[in-house]
Amino acid sequence: MSELNIAILGYGTVGTGVAKCLLENQDIMHARTGVKLVLKYIADIDTERDRGLELPDGVLVNDANAVINDPDVDVVVELIGGKGIAKEFTLAALKQGKAVVTANKALLAYHGKEIFDCARENNTEIFFEASVAGGIPILKALKEGLAANHINSIYGILNGTCNYILTRMENEQINFEPVLKEAQELGYAEAEPTLDVAGDDAAHKTVILASLAFGKWFDMSLHIEGIEELSLLDISNADKLGYRIKLLGIIKREGKDIQMRVHPALIPKDTLLAQVNDVFNAVLINGDFVGDTMYYGRGAGMEATASAVTADIIDACLNRKHDSINRVAPFTQYDYYGELVDISDIKSRYYIRLELIDKAGCLAAIASEFAAREISISTVNQDESDSSTVPVVLTTALAIEKDMKAALEAISKLDFVKSEPVMIRIEDLHEE
Amino acid sequence: MSELNIAILGYGTVGTGVAKCLLENQDIMHARTGVKLVLKYIADIDTERDRGLELPDGVLVNDANAVINDPDVDVVVELIGGKGIAKEFTLAALKQGKAVVTANKALLAYHGKEIFDCARENNTEIFFEASVAGGIPILKALKEGLAANHINSIYGILNGTCNYILTRMENEQINFEPVLKEAQELGYAEAEPTLDVAGDDAAHKTVILASLAFGKWFDMSLHIEGIEELSLLDISNADKLGYRIKLLGIIKREGKDIQMRVHPALIPKDTLLAQVNDVFNAVLINGDFVGDTMYYGRGAGMEATASAVTADIIDACLNRKHDSINRVAPFTQYDYYGELVDISDIKSRYYIRLELIDKAGCLAAIASEFAAREISISTVNQDESDSSTVPVVLTTALAIEKDMKAALEAISKLDFVKSEPVMIRIEDLHEE
Repeated sequence: MSELNIAILGYGTVGTGVAKCLLENQDIMHARTGVKLVLKYIADIDTERDRGLELPDGVLVNDANAVINDPDVDVVVELIGGKGIAKEFTLAALKQGKAVVTANKALLAYHGKEIFDCARENNTEIFFEASVAGGIPILKALKEGLAANHINSIYGILNGTCNYILTRMENEQINFEPVLKEAQELGYAEAEPTLDVAGDDAAHKTVILASLAFGKWFDMSLHIEGIEELSLLDISNADKLGYRIKLLGIIKREGKDIQMRVHPALIPKDTLLAQVNDVFNAVLINGDFVGDTMYYGRGAGMEATASAVTADIIDACLNRKHDSINRVAPFTQYDYYGELVDISDIKSRYYIRLELIDKAGCLAAIASEFAAREISISTVNQDESDSSTVPVVLTTALAIEKDMKAALEAISKLDFVKSEPVMIRIEDLHEE
Repeated sequence: MSELNIAILGYGTVGTGVAKCLLENQDIMHARTGVKLVLKYIADIDTERDRGLELPDGVLVNDANAVINDPDVDVVVELIGGKGIAKEFTLAALKQGKAVVTANKALLAYHGKEIFDCARENNTEIFFEASVAGGIPILKALKEGLAANHINSIYGILNGTCNYILTRMENEQINFEPVLKEAQELGYAEAEPTLDVAGDDAAHKTVILASLAFGKWFDMSLHIEGIEELSLLDISNADKLGYRIKLLGIIKREGKDIQMRVHPALIPKDTLLAQVNDVFNAVLINGDFVGDTMYYGRGAGMEATASAVTADIIDACLNRKHDSINRVAPFTQYDYYGELVDISDIKSRYYIRLELIDKAGCLAAIASEFAAREISISTVNQDESDSSTVPVVLTTALAIEKDMKAALEAISKLDFVKSEPVMIRIEDLHEE
């Protein structure tokens, strides 16, 4: 095999990046693989708009179906996004026996099982390195580099938009809303930002990571909290306590069972993960033999994402060259680990902020609600206050989530408690 | 293929770790690969010493040659170390058509070309993930995950012993010698520490990284400086200037030519690489599409190294199962990049410390030596001094190394310059 013909579906930002990479770095990839990677088609309904890239004649077409059905095309790169037409094209390409490369995390998080089954039935494969953490080769690390390990835990900063917003909130002491607006102006956040700031995008990626780590395709039934409700006050309080707040995808193994959740968490400021700022992503993985390893880089962007997509094209290429389809299966299902742990059953440390009307006995009443549920308090901070209410910040030792929720429900009913208690989980990131 | 028979040569620390991993995690690796990884032999001249591991009967033997010649053995894992008998056994195993897995960086740095040629001639392959940065799957990231990129630069904290010593010197304000002694007592440094502290071990790893990045097997002709001469004073001065001193393996591409060197360098304190402390390793790689990515973890130790060795065994296993030997060649040689740049021709920023006998005109004379060679000074710091000499610390803008060396030679001859000038390179780690 001396050439591989590639068709890209979707000539948007990432499509442009992949085309650029295939054209500019064709020689070095040829030198490394012995195969010439040929950009044969880019299909997009808009063939007019200038993407700032000069394509060879005949490459840009508007009929995706014709491209998928062309017997000369070896690899189809799906970069349309969404779960509609992207799913149709993906399944159609797999049914033609093409290798498919995609960056579409939502498609996989919702329809992964169906897509993997289709690939297997048609003796082909689908690659999706770019779907998690952009340019960082994290799926390859997890599936191959760490394949000798039981994975104990994964903590991921997986959404660049949220990490940018949290970094700006902390550094500039600005509230969520104006920072979001700034991020939108800079193109770091979408006009409709919910997918990012509500945690769904990070959840799609968390599902993919957990599935690869544990050989079971998890659905989107994980607990998800975003950063929209996060107050600058909690970021400052965390800082005083020696923590930084990050939106994390969290996966933990408890024996054979699996925790999986997305929410803001306090992590110690002096950890490497806490130093990951702005739009950067990072994934901290603990394996039973390797211990802690961390992977850092750009989680999005035209060129970084193109790096991951093109690495997948090379993997597809080598599997075709060596007739080793599914050498490392896109997703290997096995029956070894157990079930998802319900969020109410997890153990965590907690940061709690209360607004109290100051009167004697407040703290005693609150402390006894915790004590009644065997929740130990680690720290308490109450500052002088000018206003009619007093803010009290507590952190706890490890407690069971449902006990904490019950304690907070009881506390919120106390007559001197002014507003809903704020609860944010603390993750100390200790090596297991 | 349902089983793979593995023989380990060398039942030392890493050999014990690999045996433990193969025995303890056999089930999960079987689930992931579909192949049962069987530890058939461990060969060591010492079959008596207790390694704290219970081996199945008949596994521990003392005749390595018999193991290598056993037709049932598929993979030979060389964990003896050194360049003598380890080389003989490696070549013998390759000649038998076995896959070889090794953690032996010195062997590869000095005899890589001969070993790769032997593997190719015998239609087999050699894997060496554990030779660089211990448990971190950095070679897989470089060869596969980032294969779509021209690599612009690699900065590696590659020697855990040196990084431990530098971290302790900085945190505890202790000099090199007592910290080395402490490291030796803790088992972080060898009784004969030269290989680590003189920079040779980091150099072996740098040669391997550069060769994989640029498709040319580089020999050990790189510039190497260790940390033995490093003074606590320079660590403190660097701190005041906003830098931390790390021993780095540095690889940079200048067009088609390649810089490769190992030396202590000042790096900005607020970078992620500067936060990598104690025995941990990290590698910061910049690719032309992916931008900066960083990989972090344990660079040594029984279990972390075992994780990397066993991942290689799995790779060898999958290549045998799918009949795809050399799918990703251990080392792909190609003629694309140019030559090594001599250290005297590199451009760098510099930190310079001088001891002066205070008199009028000193600084003018020094400044004019720099000016004569078009070296711009970025910062100058001279503090009040009680003693007869005055310490002066300068940092420079980018300058050519041979100009800097010439300037320092001239400066050292000035009559008010008390001792040899100290020169340490500054690496700002800006994204290219």
